Amino acid sequence: MVDSRFFTSIGPVTLRDMIALTGAVATTASGGTVDTGKAYSNIAPLDRAGEADISFLDNIKYVDGFASSKAGACFVREKFIARAPANMVLLVCADPYYAFALATRHFYPETAHEPGVSQQAIVDASAVIGKQVRIDAGAVIGRQVVLGDGCSIGANTVVGDGVVLGANSCVGALCSLSHTVIGQRVIIHRGVHIGQDGFGFAPSPTGIIKVPQMGRVMIADDVEIGSGTCIDRGAGPDTTIGKSTKIDNLVQIGHNVQIGKYVLIAAQCGIAGSTHIGDGTMLGGQVGLSGHISIGAKAKLAAQSGVMVDIPAGATYGGSPAVPIKDWHRQTVAMSKLIKKRASDE
Amino acid sequence: MVDSRFFTSIGPVTLRDMIALTGAVATTASGGTVDTGKAYSNIAPLDRAGEADISFLDNIKYVDGFASSKAGACFVREKFIARAPANMVLLVCADPYYAFALATRHFYPETAHEPGVSQQAIVDASAVIGKQVRIDAGAVIGRQVVLGDGCSIGANTVVGDGVVLGANSCVGALCSLSHTVIGQRVIIHRGVHIGQDGFGFAPSPTGIIKVPQMGRVMIADDVEIGSGTCIDRGAGPDTTIGKSTKIDNLVQIGHNVQIGKYVLIAAQCGIAGSTHIGDGTMLGGQVGLSGHISIGAKAKLAAQSGVMVDIPAGATYGGSPAVPIKDWHRQTVAMSKLIKKRASDE
Amino acid sequence: MVDSRFFTSIGPVTLRDMIALTGAVATTASGGTVDTGKAYSNIAPLDRAGEADISFLDNIKYVDGFASSKAGACFVREKFIARAPANMVLLVCADPYYAFALATRHFYPETAHEPGVSQQAIVDASAVIGKQVRIDAGAVIGRQVVLGDGCSIGANTVVGDGVVLGANSCVGALCSLSHTVIGQRVIIHRGVHIGQDGFGFAPSPTGIIKVPQMGRVMIADDVEIGSGTCIDRGAGPDTTIGKSTKIDNLVQIGHNVQIGKYVLIAAQCGIAGSTHIGDGTMLGGQVGLSGHISIGAKAKLAAQSGVMVDIPAGATYGGSPAVPIKDWHRQTVAMSKLIKKRASDE
Repeated sequence: MVDSRFFTSIGPVTLRDMIALTGAVATTASGGTVDTGKAYSNIAPLDRAGEADISFLDNIKYVDGFASSKAGACFVREKFIARAPANMVLLVCADPYYAFALATRHFYPETAHEPGVSQQAIVDASAVIGKQVRIDAGAVIGRQVVLGDGCSIGANTVVGDGVVLGANSCVGALCSLSHTVIGQRVIIHRGVHIGQDGFGFAPSPTGIIKVPQMGRVMIADDVEIGSGTCIDRGAGPDTTIGKSTKIDNLVQIGHNVQIGKYVLIAAQCGIAGSTHIGDGTMLGGQVGLSGHISIGAKAKLAAQSGVMVDIPAGATYGGSPAVPIKDWHRQTVAMSKLIKKRASDE
Repeated sequence: MVDSRFFTSIGPVTLRDMIALTGAVATTASGGTVDTGKAYSNIAPLDRAGEADISFLDNIKYVDGFASSKAGACFVREKFIARAPANMVLLVCADPYYAFALATRHFYPETAHEPGVSQQAIVDASAVIGKQVRIDAGAVIGRQVVLGDGCSIGANTVVGDGVVLGANSCVGALCSLSHTVIGQRVIIHRGVHIGQDGFGFAPSPTGIIKVPQMGRVMIADDVEIGSGTCIDRGAGPDTTIGKSTKIDNLVQIGHNVQIGKYVLIAAQCGIAGSTHIGDGTMLGGQVGLSGHISIGAKAKLAAQSGVMVDIPAGATYGGSPAVPIKDWHRQTVAMSKLIKKRASDE
Repeated sequence: MVDSRFFTSIGPVTLRDMIALTGAVATTASGGTVDTGKAYSNIAPLDRAGEADISFLDNIKYVDGFASSKAGACFVREKFIARAPANMVLLVCADPYYAFALATRHFYPETAHEPGVSQQAIVDASAVIGKQVRIDAGAVIGRQVVLGDGCSIGANTVVGDGVVLGANSCVGALCSLSHTVIGQRVIIHRGVHIGQDGFGFAPSPTGIIKVPQMGRVMIADDVEIGSGTCIDRGAGPDTTIGKSTKIDNLVQIGHNVQIGKYVLIAAQCGIAGSTHIGDGTMLGGQVGLSGHISIGAKAKLAAQSGVMVDIPAGATYGGSPAVPIKDWHRQTVAMSKLIKKRASDE
């Protein structure tokens, strides 16, 4: 089911190896014995899997698809065993999605990039390039750039003077980086722009003037940044992204924004200047945050929320302007009642 | 009115040819006879057209501009004849916008690109390049890439290993494509990123881990994709875009999303992972769709809608959270009454 | 506090020079005399400034940080004098943010780019290149392009045939420009796409057809355009951006949009086709404007507003659908009362 033009499998893999890898317990709907020496050739989603494929059921929405699936084996929670087709080998575990992720990584191990600097890349003589670095064609590496061991820079990406990348960080094609210091194992997808000067203007006697933006962007280890995302550098303070934070595509991050560790930011969120986001927070898609506010640690913001005030740690908010999630649901119900009355009056 | 630095006209064109092309009937406000041998040199919008130009009236908002326009001739619906200036030649037809589109294509025929591979392009030796293909400077074409006859690849665009383009597809400058199979006559505007791995993370005993994304992006014939749009590849299933679907700028499409045929998606929409969109649906600008939901065929979603549940086929919804459009209007009216009461209490 | 890898200071600078530059009056909390010969080595934000740094207090939110700051000197309004630490030199002025901007520009004067055309740039022989122009590696400059004196074109940027840039305009890396005429001193950040054909389709007897887009993008002097922003060219009329208008990152501007002078548009706004925006208007982040509407001069639209109707000049609107800002606040209050009632009923 996986397209061999794009991915290279090390399969087949035996059930025994899958069990060793994931800790799953093999059984069937009828509790029959299972041949753990049997080999499976691939992974596949439930609706496309065949007898030689391993699949998984995580989201209850897909339980009907599970019941009719032709998958040879399937990671599944104990409570769904009764719904399984008779012939399916069940790999029972507490977290089927995690187990499937492990299985996938086993079938398709990440291949290290081939190191080497393309002859069509343009690398300034003063740049410090680590070992096992890959730089693709058309990339432009500026003065005093430091690329740690094992980094890779995609085709036609532009790395400005003085930028630093820690070891094993990977920048996709067509990115621009400037005024930025990046940690280790950071993944920057394609088309990301980091370090440009932000939207900083001051009123002056002769109209608005541009305020020089003298800060940087500081990106900690293990951060991932999605395609098309823009991160402006600080105006004076730095713009900072904390360890292991994951940012989806087309997100806007203004100057001086400080984002904590282990934050998840879904696509198309916009975070205005000088706002702080605590550790472990989660932002749904298209959320907008005003400038100069503070989002407490582990807060959750529903998709499309518009937040103009500080949010307490651990709280869940939704709506625009955002309110506690219970109030948001109450708004929806209250509104529904109001208009039902109206509809009956019409 | 059209800038000859950017466009090349084959005009002048006679009224006779315009009539033959569009099926319009020529008349004037007073029903006078019209010289169909008269030639027009150009097309222009109503407010900038002169005696030698052909224009059109489609949107009733512009009827005053029509009444005062200096255009020599104008495509127009029958019902607006009485509003026309006395000297204007009226090209009466059922669909003036379509007729004007035909006229424009006649004055400014699309020129075929000049085939040829730039000496500054970097094309892997294993790539299969069709006839009449154009590859611009700085483009990077990976291993085993297949470009059908008549394709064109813009400057500095990066096409990853194994990507397939059908005949006569056109990719603008500064795009990145990977893990993607593209049909015929597809238009991809500049700065589009397709095939990166999506926002896929699973909780694990040691924190979240990255889930390998093993699917592709499958794009059918005649699709058009706007600038800055990002389309993540599938996690296991493919991300698919159906025939003749048109996607505007800066749209986000998550992994496993399935979009049907003849769908119209306006700018800045965001579609979360695993959501399905039926044939012929229309999404206004900045619409957000949650993951794992289903939008029925021919549904319409108003701009800025936030959709968290399945939408029935043919339905029109608006608001966030989205409700049937009638209810959305009722909400607006009910809210307006509520606050009027409040205002009078203040 | 400023990273010398990225910025070069001309400091230290004496207090005397700062006073001459900004017109500020030097004093202390206790009204003591100040040594205007003292030199400061840098600028810094309040929380990171030390004895040798100059800082500023503008937003009242940061007054506590001011009271505990270690900054040697600080631009501040008269009313905050009493809150200052005893040892801090106060540079009292009417607009501390503006004064600080001037100070920053003094410490870190903008360095002119080094002129020169990279040997890795690809410049068509018919292009007209002014004096002191810089063209970076990988840039592709098309036929008949005109670049005024002092322009700079970033790495891997693609400038299409016939595009015109006025003197001293600056285009960042990885941009694409076509069908566009640009004034003087325009700043275009990285990853901006200008001049592609917009989302123009007409219904036809055989399905929708693409309507040729025959207009241009006209950008006036002193405009600034943020990273990732997309501006479609006109369909017949031009898309126009007026003098000194500032556009933030990831903004979508549809075909035929006309934006006046001195407009401020925050990140991720979307402006649908043929809409007009008057001079001096301000749009918050993520605002959506429908097509074919008119926003009056000096109107203000709150973040995430959704505007479907004309807005009068000078008005302030918020919400989706947008209403006058007072009504929007009343909506919030009314909704809050409604749900409080509900909560007490639960």
